[in-house]
Amino acid sequence: MNDSFRKIGGSICAPRGFRCAAVFCDIKKLGTGRGSEKGTKRDLALIVSDWPAAVAGMFTANQVSAAPVKVSMKVAARNYARAIVVNSGNANACTGKQGLRDAKAMARTTASYLNNASGKLDRFKRSSLSAAKIVAHHVLVCSTGRIGVPMPMKNVTRGIRACAPLLAGSATAARNAAEAILTTDSRRKEIAIEFEIDNKTVRIGGICKGAGMIQPGMATMLAFIMTDAAIESTALKHALKIAVGQSFNRITVDGDMSTNDSVIVLANGLAKNREIKLDRLKRSSFQRGLNHVCLELAKMIVRDGEGTSRVVTVRVRGAKNQQQAASAARAVANSSLVRTSWCGSDPNWGRILCALGYSNATVDERFVDIGYRKPGSRDILFAFRRGRPTNVVLKRLATVTSAPEFDLEIDLHLGRGEFVIYAADLTEEYVALNKGDVNDPTTLGG
Amino acid sequence: MNDSFRKIGGSICAPRGFRCAAVFCDIKKLGTGRGSEKGTKRDLALIVSDWPAAVAGMFTANQVSAAPVKVSMKVAARNYARAIVVNSGNANACTGKQGLRDAKAMARTTASYLNNASGKLDRFKRSSLSAAKIVAHHVLVCSTGRIGVPMPMKNVTRGIRACAPLLAGSATAARNAAEAILTTDSRRKEIAIEFEIDNKTVRIGGICKGAGMIQPGMATMLAFIMTDAAIESTALKHALKIAVGQSFNRITVDGDMSTNDSVIVLANGLAKNREIKLDRLKRSSFQRGLNHVCLELAKMIVRDGEGTSRVVTVRVRGAKNQQQAASAARAVANSSLVRTSWCGSDPNWGRILCALGYSNATVDERFVDIGYRKPGSRDILFAFRRGRPTNVVLKRLATVTSAPEFDLEIDLHLGRGEFVIYAADLTEEYVALNKGDVNDPTTLGG
Repeated sequence: MNDSFRKIGGSICAPRGFRCAAVFCDIKKLGTGRGSEKGTKRDLALIVSDWPAAVAGMFTANQVSAAPVKVSMKVAARNYARAIVVNSGNANACTGKQGLRDAKAMARTTASYLNNASGKLDRFKRSSLSAAKIVAHHVLVCSTGRIGVPMPMKNVTRGIRACAPLLAGSATAARNAAEAILTTDSRRKEIAIEFEIDNKTVRIGGICKGAGMIQPGMATMLAFIMTDAAIESTALKHALKIAVGQSFNRITVDGDMSTNDSVIVLANGLAKNREIKLDRLKRSSFQRGLNHVCLELAKMIVRDGEGTSRVVTVRVRGAKNQQQAASAARAVANSSLVRTSWCGSDPNWGRILCALGYSNATVDERFVDIGYRKPGSRDILFAFRRGRPTNVVLKRLATVTSAPEFDLEIDLHLGRGEFVIYAADLTEEYVALNKGDVNDPTTLGG
Repeated sequence: MNDSFRKIGGSICAPRGFRCAAVFCDIKKLGTGRGSEKGTKRDLALIVSDWPAAVAGMFTANQVSAAPVKVSMKVAARNYARAIVVNSGNANACTGKQGLRDAKAMARTTASYLNNASGKLDRFKRSSLSAAKIVAHHVLVCSTGRIGVPMPMKNVTRGIRACAPLLAGSATAARNAAEAILTTDSRRKEIAIEFEIDNKTVRIGGICKGAGMIQPGMATMLAFIMTDAAIESTALKHALKIAVGQSFNRITVDGDMSTNDSVIVLANGLAKNREIKLDRLKRSSFQRGLNHVCLELAKMIVRDGEGTSRVVTVRVRGAKNQQQAASAARAVANSSLVRTSWCGSDPNWGRILCALGYSNATVDERFVDIGYRKPGSRDILFAFRRGRPTNVVLKRLATVTSAPEFDLEIDLHLGRGEFVIYAADLTEEYVALNKGDVNDPTTLGG
């Protein structure tokens, strides 16, 4: 790849024409406005494009999808969108008809306050924000947090109202938004790159939150990616599908799929490159740029997984086909026993072979290779080769497997199917974080 | 059911005409004969039927099956067998051609020493053991323990030789065999029942070992069931399939499927009931007796699962069909997040709904019921009903979920599919037990 993506600051505010803001409005209602166990960490954010932006979204495949997912799916199916309202602290999931009403109300309220703000504030008068009235069906809604609890709509409305006048295109504003979407994540996840298309500088910036539980709803992944590239809506939707398939859909922390997972891209065209259409997408460096941003964000999620002490890149080659490679990689990456062994730096190829054996992939142990590699290194240390344990010394294997990240290289030698998945170990901390305490109702679900 | 199964002692020696013995022969070769970290716990057992016995076996579906499984599958496909040789401490898995040679040698050696013993020992002269020569293909072989390590055949042979003259039909002998097959199990698992068929008293006795890891191979389940019922081999094979489908295939500790799982039944006919044929099986109380024994043994395995602090009976009703019910139940029972919540006594219906949503079963959250029940009680405490959280007080739910065992009752209200699975929670102890220590090679695999 000859693409030169330059890393820049500012994350979602790096591309031209995006503004955001975030506030604390006590979505968890733990402290009647005086903050939660995380103090007054921001819990609601708005992200706005000055211009109508091509929109694409990918959402959880879970049949039990949350109300905001239902609302956002409809918006993302359109050609253009303008804004995203997102909260942490409440997932608005399993909340029935009221939940759907609340999610729709969040979109409506956001549109309304954004229009008000654009009238009142000088800086918006000069932008296009005042040019076209924002309507509810141009607003995407995302929620993450506790499940089965009605949205505290009073607080939410207050938050949106407080947020609208604060919208800014600064790195600080982007950082605040990156903070607002976090739940049990231990750190913000931000990235921005720039590169050239048609001699125009195009920027892509993104933030995300990972598989964190919030007292305890369920692991939710949210990612928001803004770009000033000019790209047709159809091409953008296609590009996102490709990028997510190679990134967010390739990570696993605990094998659970959330009700709220959402990845959203807005592309407002302010880079003024020749509009990218579907037929030019493959050759365009935009696709590679988006792939890069998604993969980097996805890896940040695994690294910051709950209780994660070790990240393992599981690569399966030589499966009969790609689907079988994926099945084999997922079986390994989701095996409790394999993940637990990683936690102890244990190069336990036996458990790996066992997981391969019960996967949906065809496996013949006589041909299997299992090896370990330092990330970036060329050398694979094989523990098992062509159906036999090698005579590699355990200590040498352990120098690789005791690092915070390593690659697991599996070759089934049965075909050309290949798949990579980014996985996390299973630790005592994961259990401790998620088990709740029956004597402290705020730690329990339902 | 009007069957009256009387619980009796003696487990596998309760049925007439079965003898067993067990010794310590240092299969792990940790201490050059001076014992392992478990002291000199017995690690090799022989189980023998005085008469040729109808045989049936069910084995792991893992494509990577261990050498002894390959050998025993062939024996179990025959009409008759005579003996089982089983060891703990080494799984003889992923050991290639040598492993297969070793497993076959174990069968041969067993046959040879049994024939010798029957010649030498008075009590066997009187039994049929001397009547028909035992040959290798009448001997089933089972191994559980560490993976990828060659079998210490010298020790194994010494063990078999030492075992053969000790064969006895006593409760003590059965207890010793039940001990010999254990790995990290914390206790022996034994059962025996008797009941009437054609006015003849029939006995079924069984022992098993559970999902325990051995420094660290992988979870392996072994079960040996002896009965003096007279039953045709075809009928026995069918009966076992039914019984296993409702018991051992309905338990899950960590969702990993071992390379060595084996369930074996021998039926020697000494109860002298009219031989049960396939067409009479359904009406026969033998099937129900076998079901009962298998289910009780399976439940013992879950209760003694690694780090298990809580056993949950997950019952899904109202799925579109039985397959979907099974898929839904398994998704719940294998979800890391659900299992972790159980560990904290947390009635977290949100995670359960989430797992249902990503299962292969059709789920419409608007119709879903999720409730909790004390085992044996009639009352279900619903936490979620028809798509809405109920207003049951958390404290009341917690009185059920904080007991060592409870039932989780899920109704999808979409059809008549029903499935029950017996599951365990995920605890910090599970991780601690399985993660190994890279500084202590004896705790590592491979």
